[in-house]
Amino acid sequence: MNRRNFIKTGMLGALAAASPISLSAFDSATRPGTRSGRLNLSFKPYELQLRHSFNLARSQRTTTPGVQVQIEYDGVTGYGEASMPPYLGETVASVTGFLSRLDLGQFADPFRIEDIHEYMDSVAPGNRAAKASVDIALHDIMGKITGQPWYKIWGLNPEKTPNTSFTISYDADKAEMKKKIEETAPFKIVKVKMGVGHDKETVEALRKHSDVPICVDANQGWNDRDKALEMCHWLAERGCLFVEQPMDKSAIDDTAWLRERSPLPIIADEFLQRLPDVKRAMQAYDGINIKLMKSTGMHEAYQMATLARALGMKVMLGCMTETSCAVSAAAQLAPLADWADLDGNLLISNDIFDGMKIVDGKITLPDRPGIGVVPV
Amino acid sequence: MNRRNFIKTGMLGALAAASPISLSAFDSATRPGTRSGRLNLSFKPYELQLRHSFNLARSQRTTTPGVQVQIEYDGVTGYGEASMPPYLGETVASVTGFLSRLDLGQFADPFRIEDIHEYMDSVAPGNRAAKASVDIALHDIMGKITGQPWYKIWGLNPEKTPNTSFTISYDADKAEMKKKIEETAPFKIVKVKMGVGHDKETVEALRKHSDVPICVDANQGWNDRDKALEMCHWLAERGCLFVEQPMDKSAIDDTAWLRERSPLPIIADEFLQRLPDVKRAMQAYDGINIKLMKSTGMHEAYQMATLARALGMKVMLGCMTETSCAVSAAAQLAPLADWADLDGNLLISNDIFDGMKIVDGKITLPDRPGIGVVPV
Repeated sequence: MNRRNFIKTGMLGALAAASPISLSAFDSATRPGTRSGRLNLSFKPYELQLRHSFNLARSQRTTTPGVQVQIEYDGVTGYGEASMPPYLGETVASVTGFLSRLDLGQFADPFRIEDIHEYMDSVAPGNRAAKASVDIALHDIMGKITGQPWYKIWGLNPEKTPNTSFTISYDADKAEMKKKIEETAPFKIVKVKMGVGHDKETVEALRKHSDVPICVDANQGWNDRDKALEMCHWLAERGCLFVEQPMDKSAIDDTAWLRERSPLPIIADEFLQRLPDVKRAMQAYDGINIKLMKSTGMHEAYQMATLARALGMKVMLGCMTETSCAVSAAAQLAPLADWADLDGNLLISNDIFDGMKIVDGKITLPDRPGIGVVPV
Repeated sequence: MNRRNFIKTGMLGALAAASPISLSAFDSATRPGTRSGRLNLSFKPYELQLRHSFNLARSQRTTTPGVQVQIEYDGVTGYGEASMPPYLGETVASVTGFLSRLDLGQFADPFRIEDIHEYMDSVAPGNRAAKASVDIALHDIMGKITGQPWYKIWGLNPEKTPNTSFTISYDADKAEMKKKIEETAPFKIVKVKMGVGHDKETVEALRKHSDVPICVDANQGWNDRDKALEMCHWLAERGCLFVEQPMDKSAIDDTAWLRERSPLPIIADEFLQRLPDVKRAMQAYDGINIKLMKSTGMHEAYQMATLARALGMKVMLGCMTETSCAVSAAAQLAPLADWADLDGNLLISNDIFDGMKIVDGKITLPDRPGIGVVPV
């Protein structure tokens, strides 16, 4: 068995062990009759099981749909992943549908990443997670061909990664809430989801057990700008670092008003997706939360981070609920981030990759080429 | 003789053949007693001989001082270059003085490019050409280690390079002027330096023999905004593409006034040097001219191009009078540029590298790793 088949078989073995879904071979987007290319894309739905249910401002869930991607090129396998939290509008059907329409065989090699993104954008305007899965797999191949992890190719110092925050959600059950808080012990920063009606209780429950800095994610949950400002002051007094997406993404004027007055930096999340949104964000936000599933992957995420820093904005690096595949891809950018929230792989019980680690709360990059993962 | 010594000896041989300066071994910045690093920097002054004297708005010259740089790392040689046109304020003494102060041995490897730039900026705030020479040599090493040219690492399609313009300066001697115009025949775009008192004559002389598009570089030579606007209209009617640096770099309000009214895009050159200047340029210019000797090299030049494009600005790629070393390094970025003026190596009679070529007027990237050059 050659290395390529071994990796592929290993991957399928891991899927077999962890996934409840059927295990026919990866679907292939290489259609008979199309030009035979050297980039071969295959993909497979893979549902992510959450350790705890998520209580968000506008939804609750116990699983997240995902799609695992592989691209083979010249004997090298690149791994990618799409993760589709429901509020972003992508589904297993939309992702696999999009991937099925792609003909990557028309491109000379995986290094034609700008052309491939232009092509994917021409196939459909949205489908950002689907595009990210291809982008991540291509970056994995490029890194493996060059023998380098992406943080090195980008010229970054891996020691300069920030601590990751670990997300905690409110639970009305006090024993359950205490258990959740105990799980945050290894982390240097904790992130609290707000706007679900227990905002102050969550912070107060945390402060009973811990004095770690808190990141606040309001998930567009605050409607009144005066109350939002009052909340920012209340949070600042309790050692919070910043507030992410306090108000609805369309409430630009109110957010700008809040930013002018808030003692805490205001960070855009739902407000922005891709590169052109960064300039728009300047008018109302102090920083941006970059996520690969919004940005269409690593190529545009790097450009977004570069742009935000050049414009004097803070950079936060986030993720969805993901395996170590997409989280490790995002972690390559971590030395560029002021703050990071890369805990997506820690929130699931069925990870199928080994990659970046959290060591003493700090993002720690593996010394492996590409995105730095191996199937487990 | 191993490959490394061969390349180094070949390089010195080329210098011996082409340079009038003394040929002691490259000066080394590795000082006895300092920590023994694996990045070994050496450098040597090398004066560039111009084929034609330059008639600029504010100076005239027949040579340009330069410094050739080599960095050795783990058996790989990286080539770099500083070129110091007098108006930028750097000299052989300032460049060699700066390079002598550097201790690159403290860095783990050439991929620590962000740390190395931060360190160089901490050594001295200016010295942009000196910093560029180090940056270019490090990029050459990184590319050689990964086995890839930089356009590939950046994900760019080498077929998307623009045509280069070829610079022509006014000559009162009609036979000499005609000879200069004949030399432009292989090029698809010609660049005219203005602000020297023969602005219209130069364009009219060109238009007698050629209908190629013309780029106009006023080199801050226009003082009156009304006359500048009149000139923009006159130039637009004669097939000019844009006007570079029409007025003094400090005349921001007048330039913004002109930009609002000009039928031609207004491009910043002397106005800007590095990444933070790009945002400032937005208020008065439609685009920016990026040059490695201003930007401190390839790393920041790529970021500047990314930022300008994200802000909706035009990107022009320029150079100083340089050998094929620095010009080929700049050419790696060419697929990101709307326009390019990479003729620096064609303007000198003592080039010592083989690298990027102009084929039918178009920038053509060599299929070699790193910056794509070999000593000749």
